[in-house]
Amino acid sequence: MTVYTEFEDVAYSPCGIPFVHGKEISSFDKLFLATKQQYQEQGIDVHYTTTVDSIDTRNHTITVRGEGKVRYDTLVIGTGWSYADTGVDRRGLRGIYEVKNIRRAMEWDKYLDTVKEAVVVECGPIALEMVSALQHRGIKTTVVDPGPWPMAGVVDPDIIEPLYRDWESSGVTTLWGERVTAFGGNGTLSHVDTTAGRIPAQLAIIGTRKVSNNSLARAAGIDLGSTGGIVIDSHMRTSARDVFAAGDCTEIPHGVTNVPLQGLSGSHAYAQGKAAGVNAGGGDREYQPVYVPWAMLAGEWMIGGISFGETSAAAIGIDFVSGIAKGITRARSPSGVKPITVKLLADPVTHLLIGAQMVGGEGVKERADFLGVAIRAGITIDDLATMENVYSPAIGALDEPISVAAQEVMKKF
Amino acid sequence: MTVYTEFEDVAYSPCGIPFVHGKEISSFDKLFLATKQQYQEQGIDVHYTTTVDSIDTRNHTITVRGEGKVRYDTLVIGTGWSYADTGVDRRGLRGIYEVKNIRRAMEWDKYLDTVKEAVVVECGPIALEMVSALQHRGIKTTVVDPGPWPMAGVVDPDIIEPLYRDWESSGVTTLWGERVTAFGGNGTLSHVDTTAGRIPAQLAIIGTRKVSNNSLARAAGIDLGSTGGIVIDSHMRTSARDVFAAGDCTEIPHGVTNVPLQGLSGSHAYAQGKAAGVNAGGGDREYQPVYVPWAMLAGEWMIGGISFGETSAAAIGIDFVSGIAKGITRARSPSGVKPITVKLLADPVTHLLIGAQMVGGEGVKERADFLGVAIRAGITIDDLATMENVYSPAIGALDEPISVAAQEVMKKF
Repeated sequence: MTVYTEFEDVAYSPCGIPFVHGKEISSFDKLFLATKQQYQEQGIDVHYTTTVDSIDTRNHTITVRGEGKVRYDTLVIGTGWSYADTGVDRRGLRGIYEVKNIRRAMEWDKYLDTVKEAVVVECGPIALEMVSALQHRGIKTTVVDPGPWPMAGVVDPDIIEPLYRDWESSGVTTLWGERVTAFGGNGTLSHVDTTAGRIPAQLAIIGTRKVSNNSLARAAGIDLGSTGGIVIDSHMRTSARDVFAAGDCTEIPHGVTNVPLQGLSGSHAYAQGKAAGVNAGGGDREYQPVYVPWAMLAGEWMIGGISFGETSAAAIGIDFVSGIAKGITRARSPSGVKPITVKLLADPVTHLLIGAQMVGGEGVKERADFLGVAIRAGITIDDLATMENVYSPAIGALDEPISVAAQEVMKKF
Repeated sequence: MTVYTEFEDVAYSPCGIPFVHGKEISSFDKLFLATKQQYQEQGIDVHYTTTVDSIDTRNHTITVRGEGKVRYDTLVIGTGWSYADTGVDRRGLRGIYEVKNIRRAMEWDKYLDTVKEAVVVECGPIALEMVSALQHRGIKTTVVDPGPWPMAGVVDPDIIEPLYRDWESSGVTTLWGERVTAFGGNGTLSHVDTTAGRIPAQLAIIGTRKVSNNSLARAAGIDLGSTGGIVIDSHMRTSARDVFAAGDCTEIPHGVTNVPLQGLSGSHAYAQGKAAGVNAGGGDREYQPVYVPWAMLAGEWMIGGISFGETSAAAIGIDFVSGIAKGITRARSPSGVKPITVKLLADPVTHLLIGAQMVGGEGVKERADFLGVAIRAGITIDDLATMENVYSPAIGALDEPISVAAQEVMKKF
């Protein structure tokens, strides 16, 4: 098994980078899953800082810059993602940061010490985590996003509101429905121009959506889908024989709508990589349509959900009935009662669960995982309304908020 | 609606009592769900410290001591549970404590200040929580239990081991496979005799299993089941017309085996009470067979599960394949990586989930709730092995332990 990567490293947790910047994780070293020597000992031959120029799917070869043609029996493409173009000329200015690569992050971390003011250019998930990191570093931050609230394509306004209210009360400026029009400065960024005026800033965090790094696949004639992602089948096979693909360079059908999605989470890429690897190695592992449980930490709040919220379901024309419960995740505990809001969406005819949105102090990841399995298994709101739940004052509430939200949906049926 | 209770209070959280004793919850007042006035304002006429002597199911009356006969249209029996007899004469000694009633707990809390040494007589769930409370109060504690480990009918030895190892290393003496033979003292308890010798103690905590308070129902000719619990149907109806029952005085069929269970958790009693109340009020609410998600906090550990462990499944002759995963609930976080062990049991033929056992630092309640819904919905190990999961360093791990445990079961199929 030979791996080619243009980077200096493989298999670290880029998801951890904002938390190192925010000093919540003590060191970038903690983000590596294994040492280079461990991969060597496992018989994996990794070619670091190496560029693959082309794939010849007919002759089963790739062309490696400086090495020439290399033959493959099976090939896995995992070229990942890049931030979508902001449409604004960067003019070669220092200070414009795309959070992704760990070596660059180590350098940027030093730069952050010099920064007084920062602008977040579109507030995607990583950028949203970076807002907390910038706050922890004492950097005055302005968030500029063309949407009506952060991550408007994914999260409902009532769910995200506690989070950006916290931002506002702690000095973060939020400009919703506004756009960046220019980056300014002399060699280094000094200000960002927006539709709402000029903002002094030595740092701009790019938080645009993920796009597929599909150029190698496209040049090889491998089918791309409507999102720009590489089209794969249930076994992560591309349109080219013996060529598999996994991760953010691909697109995956959504379990409810069958509409392809691109740019999912790290755990999705990880599971896809394992499925592609098993199949490329002659095994048989299916990768199923996704229902996209998600969750993230931002300041004191965890937000998360599955599939659709009210905003996204309405936007794509899915009929739904929703119910909301404001509850607690602990009844009585020395660390305090933790609030949680759970919103569930169900199909009005079948009563099947079709989406969820949550915001709370804890327990959002576990509930998102649970509801992700529930939606895939075809569990109904009736099932959730009558679910059993654990009650013990220090670890859970008498009323499980998922169950109460389901009971609210039932009342509307 | 009229309520008769022999106690001074209704609707508080007895589950919280060990945590007040342990000073983890600051006051007994926090355990009340509502004030007496609130019930009054809701039109609920509660007769406190009142004894019901008999039920005449034919004439739809009860006899209330000091009030005479009272007519009912519908009746709900919620007489609850008592600790099973230890079989050892208490000789009227002061210092033998059955943790249950909140008024008595307030008095016992003062007594705890005077206690140097305590013995726990059989280590049921509340007694297990009391061990932590006694430790927090600086009371030298000896646990005497006839089983090979604590709660041996419910929990597997590998799951409970971290918990009692912690006890042992912090000075708690554990005597497994031993019994209390006598309580000694002069007016007040001074020692407990056991099959392993005499233990000085000013306090004995009774931790025997729950038995149904069924005498009123029995005298009324209402059907009792093999556990001693009142037999109810899917709508909490007893064998007597217009008489319902709910909570620990009843028995409920287990969803996997259909074997009746008695003495479940507070959240079960609460849900049963609501179902019985709706039906007694002319509504229609079904209460389903139970799969018994459970979880509890003991010291630094949370333990929990659903339905069966390996020990209990083997004991009742259920075929199973099990898989275990030792994982983490956070990848990287300022409060540290939290370990968790998840064990899943599945039917070898159908691959259906039939049980789970867990021990960890957090996230056990949420996973137990999840698996409780999964088992009732007929989710298979295959579904869990391929589940999606949220990954974000501060709130979850790349590998969800439930999924890894399911993959381990799959390997054995």
